Amino acid sequence: MIPVAIMGHGVVGSGVAEIIATHKQKLFAAVGEEVYIKHILDLREFPDSPFADRFTKNFEDISNDIEVRIVVETMGGLHPSYEYVKDCLSKGKSVVTSNKELVAAYGAELLAIASEQNANFLFEASVGGGIPIIRPMNQCLVANNVSEIAGILNGTTNFILTKMIRENMSFEKALKLAQELGYAERNPAADVEGHDACRKICILASLAFGKHIYPDAVRTEGITGITLEDVEYASIWGGVIKLIGSVKKIDKDTIDIIVAPMFVPLNSQLANIDDVFNGIMVRGDCTGDVVFYGRGAGKLPTASAVVADMIDCVKHLKSRKYLFWADSDNSSVLPAEKSVTAMFVRGVANNRIDAYYKAKDAFGDIHILHKASAPENEFAFIVEPMAIEDIDATLARLEEKEGIQVISKIRIGDL
Amino acid sequence: MIPVAIMGHGVVGSGVAEIIATHKQKLFAAVGEEVYIKHILDLREFPDSPFADRFTKNFEDISNDIEVRIVVETMGGLHPSYEYVKDCLSKGKSVVTSNKELVAAYGAELLAIASEQNANFLFEASVGGGIPIIRPMNQCLVANNVSEIAGILNGTTNFILTKMIRENMSFEKALKLAQELGYAERNPAADVEGHDACRKICILASLAFGKHIYPDAVRTEGITGITLEDVEYASIWGGVIKLIGSVKKIDKDTIDIIVAPMFVPLNSQLANIDDVFNGIMVRGDCTGDVVFYGRGAGKLPTASAVVADMIDCVKHLKSRKYLFWADSDNSSVLPAEKSVTAMFVRGVANNRIDAYYKAKDAFGDIHILHKASAPENEFAFIVEPMAIEDIDATLARLEEKEGIQVISKIRIGDL
Repeated sequence: MIPVAIMGHGVVGSGVAEIIATHKQKLFAAVGEEVYIKHILDLREFPDSPFADRFTKNFEDISNDIEVRIVVETMGGLHPSYEYVKDCLSKGKSVVTSNKELVAAYGAELLAIASEQNANFLFEASVGGGIPIIRPMNQCLVANNVSEIAGILNGTTNFILTKMIRENMSFEKALKLAQELGYAERNPAADVEGHDACRKICILASLAFGKHIYPDAVRTEGITGITLEDVEYASIWGGVIKLIGSVKKIDKDTIDIIVAPMFVPLNSQLANIDDVFNGIMVRGDCTGDVVFYGRGAGKLPTASAVVADMIDCVKHLKSRKYLFWADSDNSSVLPAEKSVTAMFVRGVANNRIDAYYKAKDAFGDIHILHKASAPENEFAFIVEPMAIEDIDATLARLEEKEGIQVISKIRIGDL
Repeated sequence: MIPVAIMGHGVVGSGVAEIIATHKQKLFAAVGEEVYIKHILDLREFPDSPFADRFTKNFEDISNDIEVRIVVETMGGLHPSYEYVKDCLSKGKSVVTSNKELVAAYGAELLAIASEQNANFLFEASVGGGIPIIRPMNQCLVANNVSEIAGILNGTTNFILTKMIRENMSFEKALKLAQELGYAERNPAADVEGHDACRKICILASLAFGKHIYPDAVRTEGITGITLEDVEYASIWGGVIKLIGSVKKIDKDTIDIIVAPMFVPLNSQLANIDDVFNGIMVRGDCTGDVVFYGRGAGKLPTASAVVADMIDCVKHLKSRKYLFWADSDNSSVLPAEKSVTAMFVRGVANNRIDAYYKAKDAFGDIHILHKASAPENEFAFIVEPMAIEDIDATLARLEEKEGIQVISKIRIGDL
């Protein structure tokens, strides 16, 4: 019998308890012993839970129980998750978490403590929910040098964008629908402003490149400014708008990492990933592109990834999984304005034809997008790949001198 | 220093040696020791190889070398691969293979020997080339009951079908092109008749359901009979034709497993997997659908999966990976004629309208597909889901009594 503790009995935590109860045989076959829940930490009361007798409000009950060698953290947020997880790891307990905020903020430190204590700190569920990604990257792709990762990492925004693309629904209406369906929080900022996707691409980047990349070093743009006009232009261009988290290796010491809405060409594997689904492309020097697709969130998908990690901890009670990255000062992150990309630009001008000529002069070459229903004064074009700072400077000059006004700028995903 | 032996220096085997040489640092970081190639078994001469001094034509050099605890098998074929791998495992050496034919034919026996000897027998590269699938299924999805797996498992046939679909190229021309590009063998039977895909779905089914499923128990249909007319009707229906390997759990004791070309609806994730790419969908009770996509073959993708398994063996020299399935007598395989599916039927009749009426009477309901360019006497319709034996009996009756003649029958994939 392997006793485990679960910290947090919310959506994911209760899912973990449920799977341990309902998949008993499957888990027994996998580890050769029965896993049982000894403690559940939550400040709330769950008198009707089948696990009612295991609940505690006191973290010490878990921390001081030397029988408990494996702890699941599904509380979310940074505090007290961080303190609790740190305490458990410091005592040599292995910890499994679904908490991307925690891993993105403190991953390097917690991995180092786990390493010192010969314990495991696993977090498959922190990226892509039920989609296997951390373990495949860490194990299956170990014989590859990863040059790029790009993914649709947030289901809420993908649902909203899908409604805008397929049903011509406005951002506001699509967000409201997502909230009604339980896909978006009442305060949707973490999703729609890209912070959730940012934490996830930081975790993947840290894993791929062996250095902790902190979210505050990553340019993060959300989808709140995306309009149906932009969606229509993407379609005219031959693609769709997706919120992409992307990281590319520029050279030995530099990565280009960003979260932003991008035009994604229809022939990209990421273009067809719709609704709340997530998809992650990993480009290795040996494998080429590998794509992982599935439900990036939800109670049981996420909980099943947590339970899989828990099983791995049971199998590796005496040895460590080689999952590790070093701390860093973010100096390997290319400043966002140096990033090179093609760009969609939309705006208004007194004279559209004149604006195109001026833009062509300024940028060297542009690809004009014609929309039949566009207002007389609207222009839209694609700028060839160049550094963001050069695009911005050129557009600022055009705005100042040529009387045009830029409304939208959206990166062209090289996917 | 960890000495390994590689049996076979063909496409994959030479790729393994190449990756060990070119990714030294990456591998060192993963295992904390250097992996070096001590022996390479091949009957041919490779005087110019950088590994020229490691070659042997004598299997005993590997078998009797007690220093060599990890052996890579990339010879392909059943014999002497089977005898060599069995010998190595029996001596407690761990074996990694990319040989799907071997795993599909002898997996249960070899896994049992590995288990007795506390050694590992790993074969990530046997399915999906460089796409991580065996390990994710075995580890990440361990907290799921898998109800279904469906995949495009053969790159050669997918390339041919893609050419037929996108470029209206005939099967014969597309095959010839595939051969010219090195995607198809001079004797393409194993690919185009579905045997390669069959071995792979057997391996995945064995892994998911814990019992060895032998290829000879699986109805296997290739793509040699697929015509451009069928491709066009699939498009009219709203999909594409793909060679699908599929296994579904019918009840506790029964699985429905098949390899056959199928109509795949455009909104399926498998519909957009083109050219030589593979894609595999795994449906779990907790995760829902998870899809894995990438290059299913090729030197470096496949070799990188072999090397990842090798690394895993190094890390588990003293413990076993819990990868196992039991032997079986195939009694859990539903007879193919009992399998329930919707079906596309195309044929000729003296009177097309009359044929539709007769078919409607016979099948209860049919969905007629209109093709503007169809010959006057051609009919095409979709039969609602029913047992194959009932579809066949009804069509035979129509052929006998109503003067129609069936030309094509293609399953509708429920994907």
